[in-house]
Amino acid sequence: MPEYLLRCFAESGNSYKPAILLELAGADWAPVFVDYFHGETREAEYRALNVMGEAPVLEHGDVTLSQSGVILDYLADALGAFGAETPAERREIWRWILFDNHKLTSYTATLRFMRAIAKTGETPVTDFLHKRAEAAYAVLDAHLAGKTFVVGERPTIADLSLSAYLFFGDEIGVPFEPYANIRAWLERIRSLPGWKHPYDLMPREKPAAA
Amino acid sequence: MPEYLLRCFAESGNSYKPAILLELAGADWAPVFVDYFHGETREAEYRALNVMGEAPVLEHGDVTLSQSGVILDYLADALGAFGAETPAERREIWRWILFDNHKLTSYTATLRFMRAIAKTGETPVTDFLHKRAEAAYAVLDAHLAGKTFVVGERPTIADLSLSAYLFFGDEIGVPFEPYANIRAWLERIRSLPGWKHPYDLMPREKPAAA
Repeated sequence: MPEYLLRCFAESGNSYKPAILLELAGADWAPVFVDYFHGETREAEYRALNVMGEAPVLEHGDVTLSQSGVILDYLADALGAFGAETPAERREIWRWILFDNHKLTSYTATLRFMRAIAKTGETPVTDFLHKRAEAAYAVLDAHLAGKTFVVGERPTIADLSLSAYLFFGDEIGVPFEPYANIRAWLERIRSLPGWKHPYDLMPREKPAAA
Repeated sequence: MPEYLLRCFAESGNSYKPAILLELAGADWAPVFVDYFHGETREAEYRALNVMGEAPVLEHGDVTLSQSGVILDYLADALGAFGAETPAERREIWRWILFDNHKLTSYTATLRFMRAIAKTGETPVTDFLHKRAEAAYAVLDAHLAGKTFVVGERPTIADLSLSAYLFFGDEIGVPFEPYANIRAWLERIRSLPGWKHPYDLMPREKPAAA
């Protein structure tokens, strides 16, 4: 049995955050498919595992953990990869993971869900989310000016968190053209050895019975 | 000069999160008024302090920090109050601070801004945010069943983060009636010695010239 199990599904950018960390760090891990689109996360069994009713959930020994941000922090320590080297760096990483959760992923994930999955068409709500996503892109782009990665010269879990949904860029439908720093930074992340797109890293359906 | 300076304003629930921690812990602190409603957070000077253009910002010695979640974590360590006692507790606290940022504050803060401050009236966007707020309340209420506080038997920064906007409950306009566990928990927080409402703790305008 692999050391790390990650309950996840391919369309979930939040699941992708720890999945790509596990993959890039060469961890002994396996995905466990969550059948989100058939309601698995709303079922009592799943809620007993995670009252928040969300993917991902990490299982590692006797630790069961949800929320991608704290899973990233936990794994960076456990794997000795993509983490902070100083307390100041650690704070800066958390600052950007929180910004991601509050202002970037929150809007882009919902906008992408409406446009590409629920296919609601353009509505006042997609317009609202689109403008919020643009505001978040502008903040991130300004921060990245003159920088290689979000926190210093090497990639950290802050980069993996902030970039995750942006790899679904066409599905979000907020053009990257005005954000040259974001485009260059996404290319640097894509170039990390072993990098994979979410759709190539996590399962899209239940594995066939063995 | 006080040991801790917190750039904040009374209407900001995110500012209130560290403000109430500083107050309850008896820290030597002072608020520094941020003139959000006259655009201060959009100005170059403020962006140089915090590229995210948000309040709060904490200043403590040579540490300058934004994002309420990591400010709470920093202060809990520095003050030895409302923090974790074990690594597992620390993860659980972060899990709920992240949930707050992603799913509770993100929707309730914006909904309250639209209804009570911008006064947009009821729109498809307020309807969207209202339903998202209800979903977040339901998760928190389910988690609080049989519990005194969010993480264990004593209050932590997770409680201070999750409850902050809920003290503007009437302004948010999502009734608490269906959520008995949340109502009892908010009463327990209100009863902490030294507790103050955001409007009684932080400045609403620039102090008069001395």
